[in-house]
Amino acid sequence: MYTEIDTPSVLIDTKIAKSNINKYQTYCTEKGLNLRPHIKTHKLPYFANLQIDAGAVGITCQKVSEAEAMLDGDLDHSIKNILLSYNILGRSKLERLKRISERVKLSVVADNIECIEGLSKAFSSLNNELPILIEVDTGALRCGVVTPQEACDLALRVSELPGVSFAGLMTYPPKSNAATTMNNFFNEAKNLIELSGLKIQTISIGGSPQMWKAHEVPLATEYRVGTYIYNDKSLIVSGACTIEDCALTILSTVISTPTPNRAVIDAGSKVLTSDLMGLKGHGLIVGYPDLTISQLSEEHGCITSSTPTNLRVGQRIQVIPNHACVVSNMVDHVVFIKDDQVLTQQQVVARGKVW
Amino acid sequence: MYTEIDTPSVLIDTKIAKSNINKYQTYCTEKGLNLRPHIKTHKLPYFANLQIDAGAVGITCQKVSEAEAMLDGDLDHSIKNILLSYNILGRSKLERLKRISERVKLSVVADNIECIEGLSKAFSSLNNELPILIEVDTGALRCGVVTPQEACDLALRVSELPGVSFAGLMTYPPKSNAATTMNNFFNEAKNLIELSGLKIQTISIGGSPQMWKAHEVPLATEYRVGTYIYNDKSLIVSGACTIEDCALTILSTVISTPTPNRAVIDAGSKVLTSDLMGLKGHGLIVGYPDLTISQLSEEHGCITSSTPTNLRVGQRIQVIPNHACVVSNMVDHVVFIKDDQVLTQQQVVARGKVW
Repeated sequence: MYTEIDTPSVLIDTKIAKSNINKYQTYCTEKGLNLRPHIKTHKLPYFANLQIDAGAVGITCQKVSEAEAMLDGDLDHSIKNILLSYNILGRSKLERLKRISERVKLSVVADNIECIEGLSKAFSSLNNELPILIEVDTGALRCGVVTPQEACDLALRVSELPGVSFAGLMTYPPKSNAATTMNNFFNEAKNLIELSGLKIQTISIGGSPQMWKAHEVPLATEYRVGTYIYNDKSLIVSGACTIEDCALTILSTVISTPTPNRAVIDAGSKVLTSDLMGLKGHGLIVGYPDLTISQLSEEHGCITSSTPTNLRVGQRIQVIPNHACVVSNMVDHVVFIKDDQVLTQQQVVARGKVW
Repeated sequence: MYTEIDTPSVLIDTKIAKSNINKYQTYCTEKGLNLRPHIKTHKLPYFANLQIDAGAVGITCQKVSEAEAMLDGDLDHSIKNILLSYNILGRSKLERLKRISERVKLSVVADNIECIEGLSKAFSSLNNELPILIEVDTGALRCGVVTPQEACDLALRVSELPGVSFAGLMTYPPKSNAATTMNNFFNEAKNLIELSGLKIQTISIGGSPQMWKAHEVPLATEYRVGTYIYNDKSLIVSGACTIEDCALTILSTVISTPTPNRAVIDAGSKVLTSDLMGLKGHGLIVGYPDLTISQLSEEHGCITSSTPTNLRVGQRIQVIPNHACVVSNMVDHVVFIKDDQVLTQQQVVARGKVW
C-alpha cells in the first residue's frame, strides 16, 4: 500500500498521468495543432517518451541543462526534437547548446539582438542553421518584444545572419484575454513579416490554464503545455481539470495537533513550495475540502480550521499542491503509484537544472 | 573573478559568513547562552564545523535525514551533539534516529503523547536514555503544547517512561512580543514542572529576527539560530543585520530588456523561491536599491520600474534573497567566494532532506 511509505513523498498516479497525456493529445490532433509538451512539470524522460509516443512533435525545455538531462536519460531514444524556449547567452551555454544540436533537431527562441548575434556567432561554424523563433510579449509582461514591428525587425536580422534561420514566433500567453491579444499580435506580425519576404513556419503558443481554448488562436501551429500531465489546484480553480484529473499528490503525516482546530503536517515549503498562484492557502487536502493549509514553514504545514480538524497524530493525508511543476523540482525522487500500490521510485533527473 | 562564472549561481562570501558566526557567538558567550546553530540555512558540514570551532554547543537539525547528511559529511568529526527539533514518528524514522544516537549525543523534541510513546518504545532497548525537550507554543501557532499545564503533564509522562528522559523545554518564538510571551510561559511552566519534582536542564529558544534580544528571556539557556550565518533581506528589514552582513547572493544574468522599464533575469523561483516573508518583491538587487523583482516564474525574474532600469542584456547582477535558507535548498552546489575570487564549489549535502 502506497500509504505506508515514508513521508513526505511525492506520489504520481501513473494511470491518471497517462490519461491526461492522451486526452490533450487527442484534443490537439483534432484541432490540427502540434503538441510540444514542456518537461518542466515532470522532469522525467519516462514521461517525455510517453508524450512522444502519444503523438507529441517534440519537447520544450527552458534551460540547456534541462535538455541535457532529458537526452542523457532518454533510454527509448525517442526525444528527437527540442525547443529551448529561453534566451541563451554566454560562451559556456552556447557551447553546450551546439553539442545538443548535434544530438537532436534543436530550435530556440530569442527576443533581442545581443542574444541573436551570440547564437549566430556560435552556430556559424556548424553545417546546419539553428532555427530561431522570435519571442513576442502578448501581455504576460515577461520576455518577448512588445510590438509586431520589433518582431519583424528581429526576424529580418535573423534571416541575414549566418548560422541561424528564422522559423517563426513564440509567446507565453497573458492570464486574461489571451486569445484576443494573441490573435491581434500574430495577425499584425504575420502581415509585416510576410510583406518583408519571410515565411513563418511555426507560431508556438502555450499555457495550461487556457489549454482547452488553443483552437481560438487560428494562426497558432503549435501548443506548449506542461502542467496538464499532472494538473494541480491552480488548474482545478481555473476550470481546466477536476480533482480526479490530478496525478501528483504529496503524501504527508500529521505530526502534531496542538489544539482541536489546528494540525501540523510534515510537508512544508521544502515540498509544497510557497507558490500561491493567486490562491488562498497551500494546496488542497484530499477528502477534507473544508481544511486549509494556512501557513508554511520549511518543514511544517499548518492546518487551521474554525471547527475541529478531526485529524490525529500519525494520520496520513494527501495534498494536491497549488502548483505541480515546482513540487517536482523539490524532490530527488517521485513515487509512481497505480491504484493503491507502489510501482517504482523515479529519480527526477531534470530537478534543479537552472543553467 | 567570480562575476564571470555561469549563472544563476548561489555565491557565499566566506569572510562575511565567518564574521557573522563569530559576532553572534561572542554575543551568546557574553550573555551566558549556549548557541546551537540550525543547519537549515547552510546545509554544509563545513560551516557546522566552523560554528562548533567558534564555540557552539552542537547543532540543530529538523529532519532525521538532515542529521544523517551532516554526520556523513563531517570530515572534522566535530559534530558531537545534535538536537532534532521535530516530532519524530514512524518505525523507519525511529530506527534511523536510534542509529544517529549511537554516533552523537542526541536529543529531540516532542509535543504529544503519541510521539513520546513511540520514542520510548524505540529507545527502551538501548542503554542510554534519549533526552526529550517538550515543545511549547509561545504564540507562533505551529507545533507545541499551548498551556504550561500540558507541558508539565508531558514532562511527567516522559519521566515515567523507559528509554527517554525529560530534559527541558523548547519553543519557536512568535513574531511579535516574543520575549514577553516566552517569559510568561516559561515562568509558569517552570513552577509547575519543578513543583512536580522534575528538573529543567535546558530551555531552548531561537529565531534570527530576535537574535539580539535573546538576553531578554532570562530563563533561556540555549539559542537556536540559522539565518544569522548568511543573513537576508528579511533580516535587513527586521533590523537584525545590514546589507554588508549578507553572505549569500544570487549571481544572475539579465537575459531580456523588452522595454526600458522592464528587465528579466535568469533567476526565477527555482533559485529565489516564492518566499515573500511579508516583504514586497523578491529580494534586493545589490547596487540598485530602486529596482524590484516584482514577478517570478520558475526561470524568470522580472524587474519592473517606473523609470528606466538602465540594465542591459548580458549584464550580471547580484541579488540578496528575501530568505536565505530556502535558496540553499534549491541548488546542488554553492560557490564560495572571497573578495572577488572564486575559492571553491561546495555540494549542499543536506539539500532536499525532508525525511
